[in-house]
Amino acid sequence: MNPTIELLKKHRSIRKFTAQPIPPALLNELFLAAQSAATSSFLQGTTIVRVKSSETRALIAESAGNQGYVKSAAEFLVMCADLKRAGNYCIKNGFAFEGQYTEQFIIATVDVALLAQNLVIAAESEGLGICYIGGIRNDPQRVTELLDLPLGVYPVFGLCLGYPDQDPEIKPRLPLSVIVKEETYNERGNEEDVRVYDEQIEEYYKQRLGGGHGITWSQQVSKLLGEKSRPHMRDYLKNQGFKFQ
Amino acid sequence: MNPTIELLKKHRSIRKFTAQPIPPALLNELFLAAQSAATSSFLQGTTIVRVKSSETRALIAESAGNQGYVKSAAEFLVMCADLKRAGNYCIKNGFAFEGQYTEQFIIATVDVALLAQNLVIAAESEGLGICYIGGIRNDPQRVTELLDLPLGVYPVFGLCLGYPDQDPEIKPRLPLSVIVKEETYNERGNEEDVRVYDEQIEEYYKQRLGGGHGITWSQQVSKLLGEKSRPHMRDYLKNQGFKFQ
Repeated sequence: MNPTIELLKKHRSIRKFTAQPIPPALLNELFLAAQSAATSSFLQGTTIVRVKSSETRALIAESAGNQGYVKSAAEFLVMCADLKRAGNYCIKNGFAFEGQYTEQFIIATVDVALLAQNLVIAAESEGLGICYIGGIRNDPQRVTELLDLPLGVYPVFGLCLGYPDQDPEIKPRLPLSVIVKEETYNERGNEEDVRVYDEQIEEYYKQRLGGGHGITWSQQVSKLLGEKSRPHMRDYLKNQGFKFQ
Repeated sequence: MNPTIELLKKHRSIRKFTAQPIPPALLNELFLAAQSAATSSFLQGTTIVRVKSSETRALIAESAGNQGYVKSAAEFLVMCADLKRAGNYCIKNGFAFEGQYTEQFIIATVDVALLAQNLVIAAESEGLGICYIGGIRNDPQRVTELLDLPLGVYPVFGLCLGYPDQDPEIKPRLPLSVIVKEETYNERGNEEDVRVYDEQIEEYYKQRLGGGHGITWSQQVSKLLGEKSRPHMRDYLKNQGFKFQ
């Protein structure tokens, strides 16, 4: 396969970075590549807040579960879904701003993710490593205050970028048989295929943790979905102008 | 810049495809590259339904605003956010399945978008063209019935893939000054920069439509956000098990 596909298949998150900065011209290129991603109805509903302040980074790192690389990465970007920018023009052009629909929440959230993934691929193609920081949703109100996010804007995730100072293994993914279905959704074969995959993942964690106790994929996601998951998000988002109508 | 970044910057949606099929081995590679994208908390919350049936495609195309390329593209994929697959293991492992949180909706939706964008880049790197089909959310209930989507699964968008039979221009994006902010969210300079951009987009549409009436970016998004935007989505999602708690 071609080098771009090879690059995509080599992705793994990087959580330890060298002190080497990213040259401004390169960062600029990454942003341009990011922006070239598709955008729903041409909304372009993303704002990137580039956080350089070490005080701000330390506070965000703390609330994101003490992820130290939020502080140490060459760049830390907060990727925001933004309905305000377009909303300003609704009002200016005499429309009521109806930006409170579930659909609009989806559009802006997907916009951010597509743009971010382009940014990630561009960065990795230049030898940089990345880590998505979903942990900024642990305390989105803090992030909102630190970054002055107005109504109609919310932080979807953070992104650490920098030159890797580690070389972790690629984490195996579910078999394609489980992910891709023909014509209709069905679960034929999933149970057996996940069972084999669970063994593979248990082994992966054992090796990564140096012989420690492994955990399977299905155990991990059971825990994830079986507990209250950031239950503050709904009220936070409603206060932030996303009404889910 | 390197060829991957050049590729990213050349993206434009393709809405006319040749009849040439995508070789199965290549399609398989695209799926593997897609899966390599980051996934929140290792959820892997995506299911791809590959729709070959021309009857199903015709019905989806109709409800997606008569987008003919849903029928004519070599491949049409429905990209679904899937909490059910992991949810099955919650129940099996004795957890209550709490998969109804807003946060979990975000995680699964972002997972789908990251995976899809990897698929898109892989496809484009092999000379294929793509078009995202947000229009499947015009009538998500129809898509749900046609594809037998169970509770905990919803169709985020469709994806047309095929060999391009057109060569449209790249659509200019907002200036980086408007998209990327330092330290905090602010709108300094946006008004003037958007004004210049609006002129550029008006010209782009005029040329594309052969001298017709242009529309600016801000006019277009005003209309988008100023009207009721798929107001059925909330109830559809709630019925589908996404409770936004």
